[in-house]
Amino acid sequence: MFRSELEFVRWLQSHPQKPGPATRLGIGDDGAVVRVGRNRDLILTADLLIDGVHFLSSIHPARSVGHRALARSLSDIAAMGGTPRYALISLAISQSTSRKWIEDFYAGVFALAQRFKAGVIGGDTAVVRGRLFADVTVAGEVTAGGEIRRSGAQPGDQVLVSGQLGLSALGLRLLRSGRSQSIGAAEAVKAHLYPEPRCALGRYLSDRRLATSMIDLSDGLSSDLTRLLEANGVGARIFADRIPTNSQLYTKGLRGHDALELALNGGEDYELLFTVPKRLVRRLPASFRGIPITRIGEIRRSKSLVLITADGTRTEIEGRGFDHFRRRRRAGR
Amino acid sequence: MFRSELEFVRWLQSHPQKPGPATRLGIGDDGAVVRVGRNRDLILTADLLIDGVHFLSSIHPARSVGHRALARSLSDIAAMGGTPRYALISLAISQSTSRKWIEDFYAGVFALAQRFKAGVIGGDTAVVRGRLFADVTVAGEVTAGGEIRRSGAQPGDQVLVSGQLGLSALGLRLLRSGRSQSIGAAEAVKAHLYPEPRCALGRYLSDRRLATSMIDLSDGLSSDLTRLLEANGVGARIFADRIPTNSQLYTKGLRGHDALELALNGGEDYELLFTVPKRLVRRLPASFRGIPITRIGEIRRSKSLVLITADGTRTEIEGRGFDHFRRRRRAGR
Repeated sequence: MFRSELEFVRWLQSHPQKPGPATRLGIGDDGAVVRVGRNRDLILTADLLIDGVHFLSSIHPARSVGHRALARSLSDIAAMGGTPRYALISLAISQSTSRKWIEDFYAGVFALAQRFKAGVIGGDTAVVRGRLFADVTVAGEVTAGGEIRRSGAQPGDQVLVSGQLGLSALGLRLLRSGRSQSIGAAEAVKAHLYPEPRCALGRYLSDRRLATSMIDLSDGLSSDLTRLLEANGVGARIFADRIPTNSQLYTKGLRGHDALELALNGGEDYELLFTVPKRLVRRLPASFRGIPITRIGEIRRSKSLVLITADGTRTEIEGRGFDHFRRRRRAGR
Repeated sequence: MFRSELEFVRWLQSHPQKPGPATRLGIGDDGAVVRVGRNRDLILTADLLIDGVHFLSSIHPARSVGHRALARSLSDIAAMGGTPRYALISLAISQSTSRKWIEDFYAGVFALAQRFKAGVIGGDTAVVRGRLFADVTVAGEVTAGGEIRRSGAQPGDQVLVSGQLGLSALGLRLLRSGRSQSIGAAEAVKAHLYPEPRCALGRYLSDRRLATSMIDLSDGLSSDLTRLLEANGVGARIFADRIPTNSQLYTKGLRGHDALELALNGGEDYELLFTVPKRLVRRLPASFRGIPITRIGEIRRSKSLVLITADGTRTEIEGRGFDHFRRRRRAGR
């Protein structure tokens, strides 16, 4: 078996094939990029959402499952600076799945698609013995050559993130422990059940050519930043006290959760992580349409990822977020 | 629950959404069609391949599973007259799946993709507890407005099919009963394990604007012809003795299989079923690149599907092929 997703992806990439001259970017980024017109590229991405791996039927309402299935792919389009246009939904249900569940699932899909003006134009369906799953493909548009890749970061570039990290993982913990109704829980629970892909911000960064590299935070900052660094052959140092967490939440009756730990390793925030040349950082607003944009560190030539805490302690960290092949986390994240 | 795939698809189609002006064709055909350039449309299609539903780990070698996963989508592109360009492969494996199985699966995918000059440019992967499955999305190209839809057939149009029908189902029966090594079995077994999508024929029909409607034979002639007729609000009569089966095979030690029954209800032939105006039929060759093209009947105004046998008996038939919601057939087809 492969020891990690990275090893699997590298093996796939090593396969000799000729994807054709119109393929601008293949396997290994948030999405693939193909040339479809003189001024237009298409970004293609597919994402699985499986009961017991990416969601739990016992916790996630059908509407949330539909929302999250589509949000995963929309977030990949956002992470490349594209505008989502079309979605294909493949859904496997079981004989015992109720019609209401299916209707609620698609209500979640359609509501999110409509808000992003993406058309649900196809897919497939099957009835299985076993767990439900979905696979969602989204095609998005970007100005020819305007996509923002994982690679492109240079030493000295600043590392930034959108939103607040760890909220989704906190929401999941609250749901799992039956405390989703606690005071102060609503924001985290909503972030988990109905994450908001950052397409407008992604497009803003692409249009203004501000970001040198970008990835979406699906598996946790420690994992996704590690992936971005590996794609660039560089390292970074990040400052613990700059990582945007909603620390208020953790003191308001939701004690017992380490905000930093959740931000680093929680995953499923679907925020954007990107790098910007130092001289361009001041062109970025402090927030974009109400979403905070925070500078958390800097790209460095040395290949390690170093976390610096408020007291000056330096800790080398590695990706501890979700990896399907390593199974570091329990099913259901 | 929905009573049939048709009911499910109609419910999906009834969902109010605005897929945008560039969407030329949405849910309900072999693929969706979107405008991407002045002279170019893109066809998008996704197909699931699930252990226990579309294949059986115990019977299908990994290479065949990879081949068939991609072939299903390529065949959809063929059925619309398009040229496949890009494929995204989502694959869920289990902890016990060997590295060799994964490598063989992708060998099947890559070999077929290469032959059709389609690039494997992305996808997703996950490790699940339970059965393996794949979902394959393919994007194909077609001249703007050149796609052949399920609808467009007129009364009087002739009904044609490519290849020999029922071979794949025969191959599966031979594999299931441990007789895949019997004399004469090889052709049917190969048709089942490694079906050949008819992309060149589909493009030929599109380029010459010969076909008024088309569908691929994935679930059996009775089911797929019924779908095509329903999309056109018409009926048809077909002649049993014209349906191309390899009747030789069934007499060469492979007795006990009803060639007509397999051709009508067997499924997974991935041949093309299409309609051509009567006056244009003579422009069609008797075979295309070695694949026979056979006229099997005629579209009629009356909405029934009538099978006429050699002795003149007329039987009204209905779709008896695979339907996920009806589960008329056992898992593994």
